Amino acid sequence: MKEKFLNKAVEQALHGIRNNYGGPFGAVIVKDGKIIGKGCNKVTSSNDPTAHAEIVAIRQACEATSSYHLQDAVIYTTCEPCPMCMAAIYWAGIRTVYYSADREDAERIGFGDKFIYEELKLPPGRRTVSMNRLDIPAIKDLFREWENKQDKVLY
Amino acid sequence: MKEKFLNKAVEQALHGIRNNYGGPFGAVIVKDGKIIGKGCNKVTSSNDPTAHAEIVAIRQACEATSSYHLQDAVIYTTCEPCPMCMAAIYWAGIRTVYYSADREDAERIGFGDKFIYEELKLPPGRRTVSMNRLDIPAIKDLFREWENKQDKVLY
Repeated sequence: MKEKFLNKAVEQALHGIRNNYGGPFGAVIVKDGKIIGKGCNKVTSSNDPTAHAEIVAIRQACEATSSYHLQDAVIYTTCEPCPMCMAAIYWAGIRTVYYSADREDAERIGFGDKFIYEELKLPPGRRTVSMNRLDIPAIKDLFREWENKQDKVLY
Repeated sequence: MKEKFLNKAVEQALHGIRNNYGGPFGAVIVKDGKIIGKGCNKVTSSNDPTAHAEIVAIRQACEATSSYHLQDAVIYTTCEPCPMCMAAIYWAGIRTVYYSADREDAERIGFGDKFIYEELKLPPGRRTVSMNRLDIPAIKDLFREWENKQDKVLY
Protein backbone atom coordinates (compact mmCIF):
# COMPACT_ATOMS: atom_id res chain seq x y z
CA MET A 1 0.00 0.00 0.00
CA LYS A 2 2.75 2.43 0.99
CA GLU A 3 4.75 1.56 -2.10
CA LYS A 4 1.63 1.93 -4.25
CA PHE A 5 1.00 5.50 -3.09
CA LEU A 6 4.67 6.42 -3.28
CA ASN A 7 4.68 5.20 -6.87
CA LYS A 8 1.65 7.43 -7.51
CA ALA A 9 3.79 10.33 -6.30
CA VAL A 10 6.49 9.27 -8.78
CA GLU A 11 3.85 9.23 -11.53
CA GLN A 12 3.00 12.83 -10.63
CA ALA A 13 6.67 13.78 -10.82
CA LEU A 14 7.15 12.10 -14.21
CA HIS A 15 4.04 13.82 -15.53
CA GLY A 16 5.50 17.11 -14.31
CA ILE A 17 8.93 16.84 -15.86
CA ARG A 18 7.66 15.42 -19.15
CA ASN A 19 5.32 18.41 -19.49
CA ASN A 20 7.97 20.91 -18.34
CA TYR A 21 5.95 21.96 -15.30
CA GLY A 22 8.99 22.05 -13.00
CA GLY A 23 11.44 19.91 -11.00
CA PRO A 24 11.33 16.11 -10.52
CA PHE A 25 9.05 16.00 -7.53
CA GLY A 26 5.55 14.66 -6.93
CA ALA A 27 3.25 14.08 -3.98
CA VAL A 28 -0.11 12.54 -3.12
CA ILE A 29 -2.20 12.97 0.02
CA VAL A 30 -4.22 10.02 1.22
CA LYS A 31 -7.07 9.83 3.71
CA ASP A 32 -9.06 6.69 4.52
CA GLY A 33 -7.22 4.89 1.71
CA LYS A 34 -8.24 7.43 -0.92
CA ILE A 35 -6.15 10.07 -2.69
CA ILE A 36 -7.62 13.48 -1.79
CA GLY A 37 -4.88 15.65 -3.28
CA LYS A 38 -1.96 15.30 -5.62
CA GLY A 39 0.55 17.49 -7.35
CA CYS A 40 3.86 17.91 -9.03
CA ASN A 41 6.38 20.71 -8.83
CA LYS A 42 5.19 23.69 -10.93
CA VAL A 43 7.69 26.37 -9.89
CA THR A 44 8.97 27.30 -13.33
CA SER A 45 5.80 26.83 -15.36
CA SER A 46 3.55 28.79 -12.99
CA ASN A 47 6.11 31.40 -11.90
CA ASP A 48 5.51 30.41 -8.31
CA PRO A 49 8.49 29.50 -6.12
CA THR A 50 6.06 28.07 -3.56
CA ALA A 51 4.53 25.59 -6.05
CA HIS A 52 6.39 22.56 -4.73
CA ALA A 53 4.63 19.22 -5.15
CA GLU A 54 3.66 18.99 -1.46
CA ILE A 55 2.24 22.54 -1.37
CA VAL A 56 0.25 21.93 -4.56
CA ALA A 57 -1.09 18.66 -3.10
CA ILE A 58 -1.94 20.21 0.29
CA ARG A 59 -3.81 23.08 -1.35
CA GLN A 60 -5.73 20.64 -3.55
CA ALA A 61 -6.62 18.35 -0.63
CA CYS A 62 -7.78 21.32 1.46
CA GLU A 63 -9.92 22.58 -1.37
CA ALA A 64 -11.38 19.10 -1.89
CA THR A 65 -12.25 18.75 1.78
CA SER A 66 -13.19 22.42 2.39
CA SER A 67 -10.84 22.52 5.34
CA TYR A 68 -7.58 24.15 6.35
CA HIS A 69 -6.67 21.10 8.42
CA LEU A 70 -5.93 17.65 7.00
CA GLN A 71 -6.38 15.58 10.10
CA ASP A 72 -5.58 11.85 9.70
CA ALA A 73 -4.18 12.45 6.23
CA VAL A 74 -0.86 10.98 5.13
CA ILE A 75 1.46 12.50 2.56
CA TYR A 76 3.55 10.44 0.15
CA THR A 77 6.26 12.42 -1.56
CA THR A 78 9.09 11.47 -3.90
CA CYS A 79 11.66 13.38 -1.86
CA GLU A 80 12.07 14.44 1.76
CA PRO A 81 10.06 17.68 2.00
CA CYS A 82 12.10 20.90 2.01
CA PRO A 83 11.65 23.14 5.08
CA MET A 84 8.88 25.10 3.33
CA CYS A 85 6.90 21.95 2.63
CA MET A 86 7.75 20.35 5.97
CA ALA A 87 6.43 23.38 7.85
CA ALA A 88 3.34 23.39 5.60
CA ILE A 89 2.79 19.76 6.65
CA TYR A 90 2.84 20.86 10.30
CA TRP A 91 0.46 23.75 9.63
CA ALA A 92 -1.87 21.40 7.74
CA GLY A 93 -1.95 18.99 10.67
CA ILE A 94 -0.59 16.05 8.67
CA ARG A 95 1.11 13.63 11.08
CA THR A 96 2.66 11.04 8.76
CA VAL A 97 5.08 11.41 5.85
CA TYR A 98 6.43 8.74 3.50
CA TYR A 99 9.30 9.72 1.20
CA SER A 100 11.99 8.08 -0.86
CA ALA A 101 14.89 10.37 -1.86
CA ASP A 102 16.28 12.67 0.85
CA ARG A 103 17.85 16.13 1.10
CA GLU A 104 21.28 14.71 0.18
CA ASP A 105 19.89 13.12 -2.98
CA ALA A 106 18.17 16.42 -3.84
CA GLU A 107 21.45 18.26 -3.37
CA ARG A 108 23.21 15.87 -5.74
CA ILE A 109 20.81 16.86 -8.53
CA GLY A 110 21.14 20.57 -7.80
CA PHE A 111 18.44 21.50 -5.27
CA GLY A 112 19.14 23.61 -2.18
CA ASP A 113 16.92 21.86 0.37
CA LYS A 114 19.82 20.86 2.62
CA PHE A 115 21.31 24.36 2.53
CA ILE A 116 17.98 25.89 3.61
CA TYR A 117 17.66 23.35 6.46
CA GLU A 118 21.12 24.45 7.69
CA GLU A 119 20.22 28.14 7.38
CA LEU A 120 16.99 27.77 9.36
CA LYS A 121 18.87 26.19 12.26
CA LEU A 122 20.84 29.42 12.70
CA PRO A 123 19.63 32.40 14.74
CA PRO A 124 18.06 34.92 12.33
CA GLY A 125 21.03 37.30 12.53
CA ARG A 126 23.53 34.68 11.32
CA ARG A 127 21.89 33.68 8.06
CA THR A 128 22.87 34.55 4.49
CA VAL A 129 19.48 36.26 4.17
CA SER A 130 19.66 39.57 6.01
CA MET A 131 17.12 39.55 8.87
CA ASN A 132 16.37 42.94 10.39
CA ARG A 133 14.07 43.45 13.32
CA LEU A 134 12.39 46.84 13.66
CA ASP A 135 10.34 47.85 16.63
CA ILE A 136 7.27 49.72 15.42
CA PRO A 137 4.49 50.71 17.84
CA ALA A 138 1.69 49.51 15.54
CA ILE A 139 2.58 45.86 16.13
CA LYS A 140 1.49 45.80 19.76
CA ASP A 141 -1.85 47.36 18.80
CA LEU A 142 -2.27 44.80 15.99
CA PHE A 143 -1.67 41.81 18.24
CA ARG A 144 -3.86 43.32 20.97
CA GLU A 145 -6.69 43.79 18.46
CA TRP A 146 -6.34 40.11 17.53
CA GLU A 147 -6.31 38.97 21.14
CA ASN A 148 -9.44 40.99 21.90
CA LYS A 149 -11.27 39.93 18.76
CA GLN A 150 -14.35 37.97 19.83
CA ASP A 151 -15.14 36.21 16.56
CA LYS A 152 -11.64 35.14 15.57
CA VAL A 153 -11.07 31.73 14.01
CA LEU A 154 -8.04 29.97 15.47
CA TYR A 155 -5.92 27.62 13.38
CA MET B 1 11.30 54.21 4.49
CA LYS B 2 11.69 50.90 6.31
CA GLU B 3 9.12 51.94 8.89
CA LYS B 4 6.77 53.11 6.13
CA PHE B 5 6.79 49.73 4.39
CA LEU B 6 6.52 47.84 7.67
CA ASN B 7 3.48 49.93 8.51
CA LYS B 8 2.04 48.98 5.11
CA ALA B 9 2.44 45.34 6.20
CA VAL B 10 0.52 46.19 9.40
CA GLU B 11 -2.22 47.76 7.28
CA GLN B 12 -2.49 44.48 5.37
CA ALA B 13 -2.75 42.55 8.63
CA LEU B 14 -5.45 44.87 10.02
CA HIS B 15 -7.39 44.59 6.76
CA GLY B 16 -7.14 40.81 7.10
CA ILE B 17 -8.34 40.45 10.65
CA ARG B 18 -11.12 43.02 10.29
CA ASN B 19 -12.47 41.07 7.30
CA ASN B 20 -11.97 37.68 8.97
CA TYR B 21 -9.51 36.49 6.36
CA GLY B 22 -7.18 34.88 8.90
CA GLY B 23 -4.50 35.57 11.53
CA PRO B 24 -2.93 38.96 12.40
CA PHE B 25 -0.16 38.92 9.84
CA GLY B 26 0.61 41.03 6.79
CA ALA B 27 3.48 41.46 4.34
CA VAL B 28 4.59 43.63 1.45
CA ILE B 29 7.34 43.01 -1.10
CA VAL B 30 9.26 46.00 -2.40
CA LYS B 31 11.54 46.34 -5.40
CA ASP B 32 13.14 49.60 -6.55
CA GLY B 33 11.11 51.47 -3.95
CA LYS B 34 7.77 50.15 -5.22
CA ILE B 35 5.42 47.59 -3.71
CA ILE B 36 5.17 44.66 -6.14
CA GLY B 37 3.26 42.25 -3.92
CA LYS B 38 1.28 42.34 -0.72
CA GLY B 39 -0.88 40.05 1.31
CA CYS B 40 -2.44 39.14 4.59
CA ASN B 41 -2.95 35.77 6.19
CA LYS B 42 -5.90 33.97 4.55
CA VAL B 43 -5.59 30.49 6.07
CA THR B 44 -9.07 30.18 7.53
CA SER B 45 -11.04 32.11 4.90
CA SER B 46 -9.48 30.35 1.91
CA ASN B 47 -9.09 26.89 3.48
CA ASP B 48 -5.40 27.01 2.68
CA PRO B 49 -2.90 26.35 5.48
CA THR B 50 -0.15 27.69 3.20
CA ALA B 51 -1.84 31.08 2.74
CA HIS B 52 0.40 32.96 5.15
CA ALA B 53 0.90 36.66 4.43
CA GLU B 54 4.42 36.17 3.06
CA ILE B 55 3.39 33.32 0.75
CA VAL B 56 0.43 35.33 -0.54
CA ALA B 57 2.71 38.32 -1.15
CA ILE B 58 5.44 36.23 -2.84
CA ARG B 59 2.92 34.62 -5.16
CA GLN B 60 1.45 38.01 -6.05
CA ALA B 61 4.88 39.59 -6.67
CA CYS B 62 5.92 36.66 -8.88
CA GLU B 63 2.72 36.91 -10.86
CA ALA B 64 3.18 40.67 -11.25
CA THR B 65 6.76 40.26 -12.48
CA SER B 66 6.18 37.01 -14.45
CA SER B 67 9.10 35.44 -12.65
CA TYR B 68 9.74 32.69 -10.12
CA HIS B 69 12.67 34.64 -8.71
CA LEU B 70 12.38 37.96 -6.89
CA GLN B 71 15.94 39.16 -7.17
CA ASP B 72 16.71 42.43 -5.35
CA ALA B 73 13.29 42.42 -3.71
CA VAL B 74 12.88 43.06 0.02
CA ILE B 75 10.09 41.65 2.17
CA TYR B 76 8.52 43.57 5.05
CA THR B 77 6.45 41.41 7.32
CA THR B 78 4.66 42.07 10.60
CA CYS B 79 6.17 38.99 12.26
CA GLU B 80 9.32 36.92 11.85
CA PRO B 81 8.47 34.50 9.04
CA CYS B 82 7.63 30.95 10.10
CA PRO B 83 9.86 28.19 8.65
CA MET B 84 7.46 27.71 5.73
CA CYS B 85 7.62 31.38 4.77
CA MET B 86 11.32 31.68 5.57
CA ALA B 87 12.15 28.79 3.23
CA ALA B 88 9.83 30.31 0.60
CA ILE B 89 11.89 33.52 0.91
CA TYR B 90 15.05 31.51 0.14
CA TRP B 91 13.42 29.76 -2.81
CA ALA B 92 12.19 33.12 -4.14
CA GLY B 93 15.71 34.55 -3.96
CA ILE B 94 14.74 37.37 -1.58
CA ARG B 95 17.86 38.42 0.34
CA THR B 96 16.51 40.95 2.85
CA VAL B 97 13.74 40.69 5.45
CA TYR B 98 12.38 43.35 7.79
CA TYR B 99 10.05 42.23 10.55
CA SER B 100 8.73 43.46 13.87
CA ALA B 101 7.24 40.78 16.13
CA ASP B 102 9.20 37.53 16.47
CA ARG B 103 8.48 33.83 16.99
CA GLU B 104 8.23 34.35 20.78
CA ASP B 105 5.61 37.07 20.32
CA ALA B 106 3.73 34.81 17.90
CA GLU B 107 3.80 32.01 20.46
CA ARG B 108 2.34 34.30 23.13
CA ILE B 109 -0.74 34.87 20.96
CA GLY B 110 -1.14 31.18 20.15
CA PHE B 111 0.85 30.44 16.98
CA GLY B 112 3.20 27.48 16.64
CA ASP B 113 6.05 29.06 14.65
CA LYS B 114 8.64 28.50 17.38
CA PHE B 115 7.59 24.88 17.85
CA ILE B 116 7.98 24.19 14.13
CA TYR B 117 11.43 25.83 14.13
CA GLU B 118 12.45 23.45 16.94
CA GLU B 119 11.01 20.43 15.13
CA LEU B 120 12.85 21.19 11.88
CA LYS B 121 16.18 21.29 13.71
CA LEU B 122 15.73 17.62 14.64
CA PRO B 123 16.72 14.71 12.41
CA PRO B 124 13.58 13.52 10.56
CA GLY B 125 13.23 10.40 12.73
CA ARG B 126 12.98 12.38 15.98
CA ARG B 127 10.08 14.68 15.13
CA THR B 128 6.47 14.57 16.34
CA VAL B 129 5.48 14.08 12.69
CA SER B 130 6.26 10.49 11.71
CA MET B 131 8.85 10.52 8.90
CA ASN B 132 9.25 7.23 7.04
CA ARG B 133 11.76 6.64 4.32
CA LEU B 134 10.98 3.96 1.75
CA ASP B 135 13.40 2.84 -0.89
CA ILE B 136 11.52 2.38 -4.15
CA PRO B 137 13.38 1.65 -7.40
CA ALA B 138 11.41 4.21 -9.43
CA ILE B 139 13.13 7.13 -7.67
CA LYS B 140 16.53 6.53 -9.20
CA ASP B 141 14.96 6.38 -12.67
CA LEU B 142 13.03 9.59 -11.99
CA PHE B 143 16.11 11.54 -10.91
CA ARG B 144 18.14 10.09 -13.82
CA GLU B 145 15.46 11.17 -16.28
CA TRP B 146 15.68 14.69 -14.81
CA GLU B 147 19.47 14.74 -15.00
CA ASN B 148 19.42 13.62 -18.62
CA LYS B 149 16.65 16.00 -19.64
CA GLN B 150 18.09 18.43 -22.18
CA ASP B 151 15.45 21.16 -22.01
CA LYS B 152 15.02 21.35 -18.23
CA VAL B 153 14.58 24.73 -16.57
CA LEU B 154 16.66 25.03 -13.41
CA TYR B 155 15.47 27.11 -10.47
